[in-house]
Amino acid sequence: MPYTAPVRDILFALHSVLDLPKDAAPEAAPELDPDILAAVLEEAGRYASEVIEPLNRDGDRMGAKLEDGKVTLPPGWTEAYRQWCDAGWAALTGDPEYGGQGLPTFLNSAVHEMWNSANTSFSLAPMLTQSGVEAMEHHASETLKQTYLANLISGKWTGTMNLTEPHAGSDLGALRCRAIPQEDGSYRLKGTKIFITYGDHEMTENIIHMVIARIDGAPKGVKGISLFLVPKYLVNADGSLGARNDVHAVSLEHKLGINASPTAVLAFGENEGAVGYLVGEENKGLAHMFTMMNNARLAVGVQGVGVCEMATQHALAYARERKQGRGAGTEPGQMTEIINHPDIRRTLMTMRALTQGARMICLATGLALDMAKSGPSETRAANAARAALLTPVAKAFATDAAVEVASHGVQIHGGMGFIEETGAAQYYRDARILPIYEGTNGIQAMDLVGRKLPMEDGAVVHGFINELRQIGEQARANNAPELGRTGERVLEAAAALEEATDWLLGALATEPSKAMAGATPYLRLFGLATSGAWLAKGALAALGDDNLSAEEKRVRIALARFMAENLLPETAGLQSTVTEGGEAALALEPDLL
Amino acid sequence: MPYTAPVRDILFALHSVLDLPKDAAPEAAPELDPDILAAVLEEAGRYASEVIEPLNRDGDRMGAKLEDGKVTLPPGWTEAYRQWCDAGWAALTGDPEYGGQGLPTFLNSAVHEMWNSANTSFSLAPMLTQSGVEAMEHHASETLKQTYLANLISGKWTGTMNLTEPHAGSDLGALRCRAIPQEDGSYRLKGTKIFITYGDHEMTENIIHMVIARIDGAPKGVKGISLFLVPKYLVNADGSLGARNDVHAVSLEHKLGINASPTAVLAFGENEGAVGYLVGEENKGLAHMFTMMNNARLAVGVQGVGVCEMATQHALAYARERKQGRGAGTEPGQMTEIINHPDIRRTLMTMRALTQGARMICLATGLALDMAKSGPSETRAANAARAALLTPVAKAFATDAAVEVASHGVQIHGGMGFIEETGAAQYYRDARILPIYEGTNGIQAMDLVGRKLPMEDGAVVHGFINELRQIGEQARANNAPELGRTGERVLEAAAALEEATDWLLGALATEPSKAMAGATPYLRLFGLATSGAWLAKGALAALGDDNLSAEEKRVRIALARFMAENLLPETAGLQSTVTEGGEAALALEPDLL
Repeated sequence: MPYTAPVRDILFALHSVLDLPKDAAPEAAPELDPDILAAVLEEAGRYASEVIEPLNRDGDRMGAKLEDGKVTLPPGWTEAYRQWCDAGWAALTGDPEYGGQGLPTFLNSAVHEMWNSANTSFSLAPMLTQSGVEAMEHHASETLKQTYLANLISGKWTGTMNLTEPHAGSDLGALRCRAIPQEDGSYRLKGTKIFITYGDHEMTENIIHMVIARIDGAPKGVKGISLFLVPKYLVNADGSLGARNDVHAVSLEHKLGINASPTAVLAFGENEGAVGYLVGEENKGLAHMFTMMNNARLAVGVQGVGVCEMATQHALAYARERKQGRGAGTEPGQMTEIINHPDIRRTLMTMRALTQGARMICLATGLALDMAKSGPSETRAANAARAALLTPVAKAFATDAAVEVASHGVQIHGGMGFIEETGAAQYYRDARILPIYEGTNGIQAMDLVGRKLPMEDGAVVHGFINELRQIGEQARANNAPELGRTGERVLEAAAALEEATDWLLGALATEPSKAMAGATPYLRLFGLATSGAWLAKGALAALGDDNLSAEEKRVRIALARFMAENLLPETAGLQSTVTEGGEAALALEPDLL
Repeated sequence: MPYTAPVRDILFALHSVLDLPKDAAPEAAPELDPDILAAVLEEAGRYASEVIEPLNRDGDRMGAKLEDGKVTLPPGWTEAYRQWCDAGWAALTGDPEYGGQGLPTFLNSAVHEMWNSANTSFSLAPMLTQSGVEAMEHHASETLKQTYLANLISGKWTGTMNLTEPHAGSDLGALRCRAIPQEDGSYRLKGTKIFITYGDHEMTENIIHMVIARIDGAPKGVKGISLFLVPKYLVNADGSLGARNDVHAVSLEHKLGINASPTAVLAFGENEGAVGYLVGEENKGLAHMFTMMNNARLAVGVQGVGVCEMATQHALAYARERKQGRGAGTEPGQMTEIINHPDIRRTLMTMRALTQGARMICLATGLALDMAKSGPSETRAANAARAALLTPVAKAFATDAAVEVASHGVQIHGGMGFIEETGAAQYYRDARILPIYEGTNGIQAMDLVGRKLPMEDGAVVHGFINELRQIGEQARANNAPELGRTGERVLEAAAALEEATDWLLGALATEPSKAMAGATPYLRLFGLATSGAWLAKGALAALGDDNLSAEEKRVRIALARFMAENLLPETAGLQSTVTEGGEAALALEPDLL
C-alpha cells in the first residue's frame, strides 16, 4: 500500500499552529532552520515509504517466531533495520557525546509518526530502545554509559523495558522479580517478565533489557523498586561480547495485531541468575522508570497518529477507486466512485480531522518537552508543566482516535475491509494495542484528572484553556464565511472544558470516586476541544497565508470547520456526563454490575 | 468462557418494556403463554451455553478450510449442528405446513441472540438458511416448496444468499450473473458470486443457494434481476439426491473474524451451467430479495446484541477476578479487583446499557413484524410501518454497539485483551463484520433517512417519537430520587430527535446531499434516544413491580439512569451535527479530500 508522508501537514502544524520557536532545538544540536527541517522530514518520509512500508503486510502475515530458543523476524526485517540505523535515523535524539545527533523531541515525534504509519511492528524496536536510552542518559553511571550507550543510540543494539509480571499489569508496586546483590557490586536477577516488546530476536547482536526488580530486603510496594540493566550478552571491558546472560525468551504471545513485533515472556535467572547492574539509585526505580514512561507515552500517542494517517490514506485511495451506487445525475446501472457519497465524505472528513487534531496534540507535547529542556530558562517550568498536562491527552486521545479511524477505514472498504489481504483489517488490529500499553487510557485519564489538573492549583490547565478560548474569539471575530460557526463552536467547547475542569477540581477533594468516574469522558472532551481550537488556529493562519495554494487553504479551512461543526458539538454532552453522570456511573455496587 | 443466557433481561424487555401483546404469535402457532415463553428461552440458553459456546474458541483458531475442493469445518461443528436441528431449534419459525413450528419472529430474535453470543460463526448457517426459507415461503412455486422447503426448515439442508459479485458490493443493479432459459422451464446460471456465507461445507448433505441473476435479454439495472434456487445437488422427483450441480467453491476468504464460518467465492456454471429454478416472477428478483433482506437485517442487528452480551459477560468476569491497583482504604501493595475502579465501573455500565438498548430495539422490530402479520387487522399496517422504520436502526445501532462494546471488552482486559487466548480479541474481530454485511450501516442510515422518515409524510416517525416523549414525561413526573434526571434527559433526547427529523424531512426535498451527510449521526441519535426512553420505561415498570427482587429493581433503575445521564447527553450534539454540519461535511470536493 503506497504511503505518502504528510510532510506539508506536519510542517504546517509546527509553523502555523504551534508557532515553532527558534530555540526548540537543544544548543548542542545543529541549527534546525525551516529548510533543513523540511528536508529531514522529506527524507524520513521517503525512507518510511520505500524501505519500511513494503515489509508491513508480509510482516503481519508471517509474524515473529520462536523456534529452538531463537526468535526470528519476518524476511527483510534485519536488513531494513540495519539500513535504517546506518542512515542515522536511530541516533536522531541521542546525546551527541555518545554519537547521537541531539535533535529535539518534536522532530523525533514527526519522524516516529512516519515509521509507524509505514509499519507499526517495525517501529517498536527503535521506540523501546529510545526509552532505554533516555533512562540511561538520566540515571546510569558513567561506566554503564561508556559500555552501553553508544551502541544503543546508534541502534547497533536494541533495548527493552521490563515492567509487567504475570500477576500484575500496570500495578508496579506488586512486582516480585528479585535482585540479589553480589560482591562485585552487580546483582543477580530472578523472575519472570511478560509482554516484553522485542524481548528477543537476532536482528542485533545484543539486547539491553531495562528491568525493574526488588532488591532483597527492600521496602514493600513502589518504594522498594530498583531499575537494572541486564544485557542479553555480557559485555567485556574492551567492548566485545562475552558470555550469554541468564535471560531467555520462554514464549511469544499470540496477539491480535503487531504480529511481526515479538512480544516475549522473559525468564530471568532460571539457572545461575541473570547478571544485572543497578541504574540510578536503589529503590528509586519507579521514578527512573517514569523518565522513560512519560516519553514512551508520548511515543505511543504518536503511534496512534501514525495509524490514523495510514488508515486514512488507505481508505481514501479505496474510496477514490471503488465504484458503487448511483451518484447525482447518473444513469441507471452507471456507478460512481464511493468517495462521491455524502456519508463516505463525512467519514473521510472525520478521519482527517481526528488525525490532524491528534497530530497537533502530540507535536505540541514534544515541543513543550523540548522547550522545557532547551528553551529560555524563564519558560522552562511552564513548558514542563504544559508537557505534563498534555502527555496523557496525547497518549489516550491519539490512540483512541487510532482505533476509531482504523475502524472507519475498515467500514469504508465494505466487505473487502473484512478480508485480510486488503490491509484495512491490519490497521484495526494493530491499533487496538495502543490504548492499552504504556498505561491504559483509563490510567491516562486518571493521571490527567488526579495529578495534572491540580498542578499549581489548576493554574496550568486554566492557562491552557484560556489559550483555546482566545483562538475561539479570533475565529469568531473573523468574518470569513467559509469558517461557518467555527468560532462559536470552539468557544463552546472551551467553555465546556472549563466547566468540567472546575467541577473536577472541586470534586477531587470532596468526592474523588465521582471525579475519577468522569476521567475518561473528560479526557475526550479535552482532546476534542484542543483539536478543534488548533485546527481553527490553522484555518485562521491559512486565511492570511498568501504562500499557500488556494487548494491547501480551502482544505485547512474546511477541516477546521468540519471539526468545529461536526465533532465539537459532542463536547457539551461530555461536559454534562462528567459533571452530572458520576452518581449514576457508580450507582451499582460492583456485585450488582 | 461460560455464558449465561440473559433470560431475565429478555423477558423483562418483552413484558415490561414492549408490552408483549397476547396475539403476537401467529394463529397457527401453539399458544405462547409467559411460562412457555420463559421455558423456551431457558432451554435455548442452556443449549447455547452447553453445546454451542464450547466450540467457539477452537472454531476461531482452526477456521474453515478448503482442501481438494471440499470445505471442512472445525471439529464438533457437524455433530453440534445436527443435534441442534434434532432438538427442533432450526424449525422454530418455519411454516407448520412444511414441518415448522410457526413461532413468532420476536421469539426467534431472542434465541438467535443466544446462538450468537455463544458462537457467531456457528449461528450464521441457520441465519442464512432462514433467509432462504422466508424467500421461498413468500415467492416459490408449490413444486419448489414441496421439493426443498421441509428440508430447509428442519435444517437438514442449509441455505445461502448469493448477491455480491466481484465488481459490485451493495449495488445490485450492476450484477452480471447470467441465467439462460432452458426448454424444460429451468435455467442455467453462469457467473461468480463472492462473500457467500456457508457457501460450501459438508455439514449437511445438500446446500440450497438463493441466487440473483439476470435472465438473458432482461432490462438493465435493478429491473432486470431475477431470483433463482440453485441446489448443490439436484433433487430427484422422489426427494433423493441426484447429480452434483455445476456450482463450486473456488476459494475461501481469509478474514478478520468469524473464521469458522466459510465465506466462499462460488463459481456457477464453469462447465455446463448450474441448473437453477426461478423463484417468484421474472425480473422481480430484487423485490423478492428484499423479503429476505429485511429479515436478515434484523437478524444481523440481533447478532450485534449477541456479541454485546457475550463481550460484556466476558469482561465482567475478568473485572471481578483481576486484581490491580489500590482500592479505597487498602494498604500499600494490597490490590483490589479492577471492578472496584470507577473508570472500569463506568465502562461496564456503558456496555450493559448499550446491550440492553440494542436488544430492546431488535425485539421491538421483531414484535412489530409479528404484529404486522398476526395482530389485529386494524393495526397491521401501523406495525408494518413501525417495523420498516426500526429495521435499519436495529441493524446499524446494534452492530455499531457490538464493535464499541467488544472494544471496551478488550480494553478492560488490559494487555491480556490483546492476547488471542483470552478470547476478548475474538469478539472484537467477529463484531467488525456486523456493521458491513447485509447493507453497510451507512446504507442503513440512508435507508432510514431517505425511505423511512418520509413514510406517510413523516407521520410514522413522529408517532414513534411521541411515544418516546410520553415515556420521558412519565419519568419526569415520577418522584423517585433514584431516577435522577432520567426524565429530563429522555425528553431532551426526544426533542433532539424530533428537531433533527424535521430538519431532515425538509432537507430531503431541498438539499438531499446534506440530508444524506447527516444520515449516520441521525441514526445514532435515533438509537440512543430510543434506547434511553425504553430503559427508562423499564425503570418505571421496575419501580412499580413488586415481583422484582430489590436487586433487580435497583439494577434496572440504575442502568436507565446511567444511560440517561451519561449517554443521552450526546444526542444534543448529534442533533446539531445533523442540522448544522452538512455544509461543512461536504465543503471539500472529493478530489481535495
